[in-house]
Amino acid sequence: MANLFLLLLFLFGAVFCGQSKFIMYNTSQSIVPGKLNVHLVPHTHDDVGWLKTVDQYYVGSNNSIQGACVQNVLDSLVPSLLADKNRKFIYVEIAFFQRWWRDQSEAVKHVVKQLVSSGQLEFINGGMCMHDEAATHYIDMIDQTTMGHRFLKEEFGVTPRIGWQIDPFGHSAVQAYLLGSEVGFDSLFFGRIDYQDRAKRKNEKSLEVIWQGSKSLGSSAQIFAGAFPENYEPPAGFYFEVNDNSPIVQDNIDLFDYNVQDRVNDFVAAAVSQANITRTNHIMWTMGTDFKYQYANSWFRQLDKLIHYVNKDGRVNALYSTPSIYTDAKYATKETWPLKTDDFFPYADRENAYWTGYFTSRPAFKYYVRLMSGYYLAAKQLELFKGRMNSGPNTDSLADALAIAQHHDGVSGTEKQHVANDYSKRLSIGYKEAEQLVASSLACLVESASFTGCQNPVTKFQQCPLMNISYCPPSEVDLNQGKNLVIVVYNSLGWRRNEVVRIPVSNEDVIVYDSEGKEIVSQLLPQAEVYASLRNYHVMAYLGETPAKAPKYWLAFTVSVPPLGFSTYRVSAAKGTVAGPTRSSVYTYQTSETSKIEVGQGNLRLTFPPNQEKFTNYVNTRNSVEEQIKQSYLYYSGYNGTDDEVPQNSGAYVFRPNSTYLLKHERQVPLTVMRGPLLDEVHQQINPWIYQITRLQKEKEHVEVEFTVGPIPIDDGIGKEVVTRISTSMETNKSFYTDSNGRDFIKRIRDYRSDWDLEVNQPIAGNYYPINLGIYVKDNSTEFSVLVDRSVGGSSLADGEIELMVHRRLLLDDSKGVAEALNETVCVFDDCKGLIIQGKVYYRIDPLGEGAKWRRTVGQEIYSPLLLAFSEQDGDDWINSHILTYSGIDSNYRLPDNVAIITLQELDGGKVLLRLAHLYEIDEDKDLSAMASVELKKLFPRKKIKEVKEMSLSANQERTDMERKRLEWKVEGSFGSVDERVLRGGLVDPEELSVELGPMEIRTFIVYFESESDIKPFDV
Amino acid sequence: MANLFLLLLFLFGAVFCGQSKFIMYNTSQSIVPGKLNVHLVPHTHDDVGWLKTVDQYYVGSNNSIQGACVQNVLDSLVPSLLADKNRKFIYVEIAFFQRWWRDQSEAVKHVVKQLVSSGQLEFINGGMCMHDEAATHYIDMIDQTTMGHRFLKEEFGVTPRIGWQIDPFGHSAVQAYLLGSEVGFDSLFFGRIDYQDRAKRKNEKSLEVIWQGSKSLGSSAQIFAGAFPENYEPPAGFYFEVNDNSPIVQDNIDLFDYNVQDRVNDFVAAAVSQANITRTNHIMWTMGTDFKYQYANSWFRQLDKLIHYVNKDGRVNALYSTPSIYTDAKYATKETWPLKTDDFFPYADRENAYWTGYFTSRPAFKYYVRLMSGYYLAAKQLELFKGRMNSGPNTDSLADALAIAQHHDGVSGTEKQHVANDYSKRLSIGYKEAEQLVASSLACLVESASFTGCQNPVTKFQQCPLMNISYCPPSEVDLNQGKNLVIVVYNSLGWRRNEVVRIPVSNEDVIVYDSEGKEIVSQLLPQAEVYASLRNYHVMAYLGETPAKAPKYWLAFTVSVPPLGFSTYRVSAAKGTVAGPTRSSVYTYQTSETSKIEVGQGNLRLTFPPNQEKFTNYVNTRNSVEEQIKQSYLYYSGYNGTDDEVPQNSGAYVFRPNSTYLLKHERQVPLTVMRGPLLDEVHQQINPWIYQITRLQKEKEHVEVEFTVGPIPIDDGIGKEVVTRISTSMETNKSFYTDSNGRDFIKRIRDYRSDWDLEVNQPIAGNYYPINLGIYVKDNSTEFSVLVDRSVGGSSLADGEIELMVHRRLLLDDSKGVAEALNETVCVFDDCKGLIIQGKVYYRIDPLGEGAKWRRTVGQEIYSPLLLAFSEQDGDDWINSHILTYSGIDSNYRLPDNVAIITLQELDGGKVLLRLAHLYEIDEDKDLSAMASVELKKLFPRKKIKEVKEMSLSANQERTDMERKRLEWKVEGSFGSVDERVLRGGLVDPEELSVELGPMEIRTFIVYFESESDIKPFDV
Repeated sequence: MANLFLLLLFLFGAVFCGQSKFIMYNTSQSIVPGKLNVHLVPHTHDDVGWLKTVDQYYVGSNNSIQGACVQNVLDSLVPSLLADKNRKFIYVEIAFFQRWWRDQSEAVKHVVKQLVSSGQLEFINGGMCMHDEAATHYIDMIDQTTMGHRFLKEEFGVTPRIGWQIDPFGHSAVQAYLLGSEVGFDSLFFGRIDYQDRAKRKNEKSLEVIWQGSKSLGSSAQIFAGAFPENYEPPAGFYFEVNDNSPIVQDNIDLFDYNVQDRVNDFVAAAVSQANITRTNHIMWTMGTDFKYQYANSWFRQLDKLIHYVNKDGRVNALYSTPSIYTDAKYATKETWPLKTDDFFPYADRENAYWTGYFTSRPAFKYYVRLMSGYYLAAKQLELFKGRMNSGPNTDSLADALAIAQHHDGVSGTEKQHVANDYSKRLSIGYKEAEQLVASSLACLVESASFTGCQNPVTKFQQCPLMNISYCPPSEVDLNQGKNLVIVVYNSLGWRRNEVVRIPVSNEDVIVYDSEGKEIVSQLLPQAEVYASLRNYHVMAYLGETPAKAPKYWLAFTVSVPPLGFSTYRVSAAKGTVAGPTRSSVYTYQTSETSKIEVGQGNLRLTFPPNQEKFTNYVNTRNSVEEQIKQSYLYYSGYNGTDDEVPQNSGAYVFRPNSTYLLKHERQVPLTVMRGPLLDEVHQQINPWIYQITRLQKEKEHVEVEFTVGPIPIDDGIGKEVVTRISTSMETNKSFYTDSNGRDFIKRIRDYRSDWDLEVNQPIAGNYYPINLGIYVKDNSTEFSVLVDRSVGGSSLADGEIELMVHRRLLLDDSKGVAEALNETVCVFDDCKGLIIQGKVYYRIDPLGEGAKWRRTVGQEIYSPLLLAFSEQDGDDWINSHILTYSGIDSNYRLPDNVAIITLQELDGGKVLLRLAHLYEIDEDKDLSAMASVELKKLFPRKKIKEVKEMSLSANQERTDMERKRLEWKVEGSFGSVDERVLRGGLVDPEELSVELGPMEIRTFIVYFESESDIKPFDV
Repeated sequence: MANLFLLLLFLFGAVFCGQSKFIMYNTSQSIVPGKLNVHLVPHTHDDVGWLKTVDQYYVGSNNSIQGACVQNVLDSLVPSLLADKNRKFIYVEIAFFQRWWRDQSEAVKHVVKQLVSSGQLEFINGGMCMHDEAATHYIDMIDQTTMGHRFLKEEFGVTPRIGWQIDPFGHSAVQAYLLGSEVGFDSLFFGRIDYQDRAKRKNEKSLEVIWQGSKSLGSSAQIFAGAFPENYEPPAGFYFEVNDNSPIVQDNIDLFDYNVQDRVNDFVAAAVSQANITRTNHIMWTMGTDFKYQYANSWFRQLDKLIHYVNKDGRVNALYSTPSIYTDAKYATKETWPLKTDDFFPYADRENAYWTGYFTSRPAFKYYVRLMSGYYLAAKQLELFKGRMNSGPNTDSLADALAIAQHHDGVSGTEKQHVANDYSKRLSIGYKEAEQLVASSLACLVESASFTGCQNPVTKFQQCPLMNISYCPPSEVDLNQGKNLVIVVYNSLGWRRNEVVRIPVSNEDVIVYDSEGKEIVSQLLPQAEVYASLRNYHVMAYLGETPAKAPKYWLAFTVSVPPLGFSTYRVSAAKGTVAGPTRSSVYTYQTSETSKIEVGQGNLRLTFPPNQEKFTNYVNTRNSVEEQIKQSYLYYSGYNGTDDEVPQNSGAYVFRPNSTYLLKHERQVPLTVMRGPLLDEVHQQINPWIYQITRLQKEKEHVEVEFTVGPIPIDDGIGKEVVTRISTSMETNKSFYTDSNGRDFIKRIRDYRSDWDLEVNQPIAGNYYPINLGIYVKDNSTEFSVLVDRSVGGSSLADGEIELMVHRRLLLDDSKGVAEALNETVCVFDDCKGLIIQGKVYYRIDPLGEGAKWRRTVGQEIYSPLLLAFSEQDGDDWINSHILTYSGIDSNYRLPDNVAIITLQELDGGKVLLRLAHLYEIDEDKDLSAMASVELKKLFPRKKIKEVKEMSLSANQERTDMERKRLEWKVEGSFGSVDERVLRGGLVDPEELSVELGPMEIRTFIVYFESESDIKPFDV
């Protein structure tokens, strides 16, 4: 420590500049009003997984795939920033920053905190990752953003001001208004918009706009949004990573190749060129790109010189800046900006390159993410009810895995296979821990009456994540040995649910008892043969073990579960004397038969024609809706452009169909129908690799279609993209509606864009949109809605028709970077076969104006399926020793039909993060699009609320602070909010604690309670 | 400056390590005696020009050719060394370091000085570049090393201890003993030795040896020398440059891919493997390679971890080290080492890849370097005589250019063409400045009698660097207008020279006067026609102008010049009345003639047969030596291995002949003979692109052959390597002798290596050796010697035969890195044609034992040609107003025949650097291999010597200090120096100031004088 002075000299050497040839650069320039200001924004774009896994990117391993090491970036950044206080840098992806932060000494942390507080290092965007905007659910987007934002708040006390979605492949309305305006961002920047749109916007200087992403929230949730002129990289010739090719500024007159004036001229030319397509005299240069700044000094050295010499030249003004400084500068000009509504989907970067394939890429992973998302929401509730343990099993690793999976090369499906495996591994590890938490929380809750205490509950609950392939060891137990199967059914929604659940069972004669000990109707359905092989193969593939003999039946029964609570069901052997469940009747209809086949025990009936080529009749007897529908499967052959001048194959990102083939039902295969008291099923083997079950529950008025698609054959050397298409005779006038991240619905018009005159190059791919919740069409009298269980791509390519892409298997790379064909397989040892996708779509036809309630309600149910936990019990004393029904909220309360709890999570210190979401848009439903109200006191019946703070959406600042800082932008052609009918809830009265929500409003609260002991769950 | 504490925290964070996950690595390990010690030596290998120019490498421009930026290396190194005081680094190439040093603030300089003085940063090798060892002259090697060493001494007070020639393509004896032992190095390391040699040495653990490079100096100039087991890179899998593929040490247990044990195992395995071929329990790992450490932290981070975990593992001991520490450790073991004599030429890295092409590659550039080397030596003398000016024209930039050109991808010819151009540009710029200095120094010297003072001499001297293509504007002036041409002829050698000089003149009737005003014999020779086009084309190409009409004649006359001095000659028009010079007689002999042609006016006669196919008779009438000789030209077709499994073409590095073609004289072309009183010339147009002049001076007993070769035709798509071969009937028993860097001669035996049983794969290329001074063969009675004017490759492929490769033009790259075909062209605007080489060889046949004196004496004259300066004078008063003869040394003194002044240079403060070289090896000449003596006082007749300090060869430490520190190594099988007869001069008596020199001894002195004013040159 003797050479203190040395170190200071080294770092502050500039101050001591002597007679040597050492050049001190003047980098202190700030904005100069009369000049063209070039905001140089040093940045790195660090994918949270893509060609390498997030950990590999962080530590810099696996460089043979891609040279990238985020640790280098952050390590080298610190001394570079210390060396000149004018230098600035933005950092974006908190998953990386957090990894780095944990590795640092207290000393470095202290230094970095100062750099953050001085503004030299600014966090923007600030989620764990830069999430995808097409295949992500809004709840996941909020969650991952909140994780990052709260980390930054806790460690640094800062609140990111800027949305920075520079790489995602198209941009959603929800991103703009919800993850932009509602998290308190002052602006949102991005790099990828349609090439035709971009051309027009450059011409009209409308790359920068005021974006109102929500019809319902209108100008109250608008944001200044800027699309970059080209991409998120520097202008050509200004790349300064180690070994980059751009000419460095050679300003040493004693060496050869002195080029200062050349480089200044290049700089000015590039600046003027950008200024010509930009409003105001401020332009931003994104000085960095993917994983750059591994040796930060290599950039800063050149940027110092450019600022120094360009400003000496004086034609333009160059300065170190950040998007915040840029935004403030834009705002200060008082310029008026064009208005932008809706979204920026689909994205094409050139003719024939529509990035609409990724809406469906990796459909199994997309489902896994969605499944985990719903599970995480429920698990957090149960974590709260039990009491969160920082050290014990908790939801943290699942939260982390989910956050990372939202990355725009994560759930998007555009990562390499080994990276997709990594995301799945993380989810699996996170799930395993959350599963333990859920089991122990439920155990605590069911045992609370017996006062066993909750650290070590006795009851062992098992769950069945592989139930979709009819694998559920606890339910398959042989009940003839005298054991009872206890099933606790948890409902994470805010209203009571009555639904049919199905579990695999081995015994034929079983009785199902409800929470009150009453026998209830149940139905056995024979397991379809195809499921047995599915089960065997995948249990071996995923668990590495051969499963027990496949159970013969699905046992179906109807459960009724209170909001945020559970009910308990028991299944026992019938023991001969007692009446068993009503067996399913099994009829097999040959296609040669001439009679029609009608299924449906309730209001909804489907009548299948004997010839499966013809239309099926759909009738709802309650409301007399009737329609001829036809569901079919098709596949698009992936385009092979290998030999083209500019190759553009169909691939992980891009959907580029070559041609279409309709899959006909195999004539010889019989159509199998199962009927029973609770539900009817129609089984169809569409072709050797597509199996479909059409399921009608007696009490529901929608059709559930469960499909099993794959392995997609590729022995003809051609990749295929499989869609299911449901046609009706509706005249839908080219229009259809798709959701934005599972939230707002946006009207789409075939072969049309509202922002420019579309030149149609890809009539199929160019009409595809991302679907997370559902898609619908309407005509003058009815609306036809389809809901999905995961994100997929879809469209309405002809009037009355809805099509969803459910699976894709491609043999070529599409030249967008992943450098791998999207050819997913599942392997048992070295034996691999193409991935099989099992999924569900739900459809229904309603009278015009009545579809929303079904879409919103069932949409919530699909996102939050009932959570089943199994326990085995000797004898019948469960009912006496356990809590059989439970609700986390006041047992007399339920949420309004138009509100959902989208977050209920215990934070440090016993406080609770609560998010309430209005589920309807303005004008969406004649009743439910109204202001809703939620009684907070009823949500926490066992605790006394001390205080409620309304927060920004990402819960990193108080809402009032956020609103106070909000910038008021001027919108072109707008003279006040004449047409707007924005409805937002008012301030929460601290006594009343009643929360109002307007259409599409999401309100975020931190709830503080009187005493920590109050949150114990067994004070029932 | 407020956050002092922050910065300290940042840099010394490790000390404050708190509860976080931050890991503090223990890197403090030093040598552990009982264990295998793995010396990790962080280093970068920075070519001073290769694929990019030295400046481009420094600033990091032109990265599209090669990603490399030395500025990054040195910038990033400093904080990395500061961060952990155990980290070490060596730096080698001072040309780069000096560039960086000049760019630094005083503050950084201060920090770096501390790092150097603490040993964290150690300079090794320390020349301006890592010079080539084949194509370099020992004087250039000494000069460039001295420049670097003195810089280091002056800036840092340090003396490099280690020779580090890790990349040159074979290793010379002179490097080992002269640039190794004699500069005070304790060891010498290198990477490239013959693959067969390496295999044997690994097997015998003899990669590390004691190398005695000089027969004459024997053990008094030996050095510990180590060849690396593979190359100068890390073991496979331990490369840690940013984006390198080696697995990093992933020691964060919270992230995936934790691999500490794997990496430790890899480390131990690699260490044990190396230990198995190494004596003692010390091995060195060279942790770096070409231009690495651009972000030094990326290496040190991993090295820290490896040291930490490997030492925790404990099987081997890993430590930060340097070659100095390694050498000391080796020394401390008291191990005995094998003896190595001679050198490591030629180098082959595999079968068929003999790196012997580069001995000749870029023959024009090689000549330019040699020419500049001799000129620089003379210019420094004249700089001293005039008095050095730091700001005025001086020799510094020529010194710098020459130093850089010695790089092992410089004069070696293995750089890209644009880099060769850069070296030449530097030489040209340096020459231009030195030329001014020489002109003004000579002007000062000639004017000193008139007391005009020397800052602004009146006389304008011009010089003629393009005299070789008969372009010399000052001598071409029309003397009929009454002007006199004054020619000052400077002799930089220590003895008087009588030589014929030739200058182009336009007038026929001219008279030449000597310094005493006496008319002397001169001879006019018609300019050969081919030279006119050579002249026109190249003046246009190099100077961008069309030259005046070509002069018709060469004017030859004999000059006599005192040591380190000049004589003045005048040429005037004969004006009719006065007798003109003796004209040359011109005879043209047709090959059809039957008579023999005899040439030679003195003792030496050549008799050409009428049929040029037959032998020429060589007779020296003085000593009756007679021999039939035949000189021919051949070319080797460059091998085209493009389609081979392992391609190995002939290229810039590698000589791989495909076949041989003998060029026959064109029968139709007449043989032209010119005779005169001073010299005879025989002109032969060998073929359309080879022209040869055989020249015999009356007063000399050797043959001078001037050849003009090129453009080598390539219209057949085949590269060609042209040799001249001189055959005799001598029975030379496979043996021949080639010089080592122009100094010691080493015996070579065809198809044989003394160190191992040679497997002959390339009977031609594998017998090629570098030649800088000459080559000779001998039989029982005579010796046949050939001297060269530049470095070339040569051999004796058959008894009695000597062959020199004079030019090569190749169309393929040889896969050794330069990635360019060696296809040199010369362009006038866009019109390019193959490079034409003009050069000279000199040969002579002596009675056995008498050749050395000629080789050594004429060798010196070739290296230091007479320097001609021209001035125009009206009238005849020059003789009265100017000094006409001058000697820089006592006019009654001359150096002994066996001693040369190889450095005479003014240093700062008026002190003088003097190097004296004994020119003979032990036993080389019966008289001259004796101890020689030089009177220092006589060398400085105009000054009084105050003190003389004998220095190491690179003049960076006193010789006594160096000797005191010398390590005494044990040599295998050696029991004292029984056979040795090493003769070295004794200490210089401070009063006597007489310097003794033993055979091959070079002694370096710094001479201090009584008063600075004494050094003024005009106190004649």
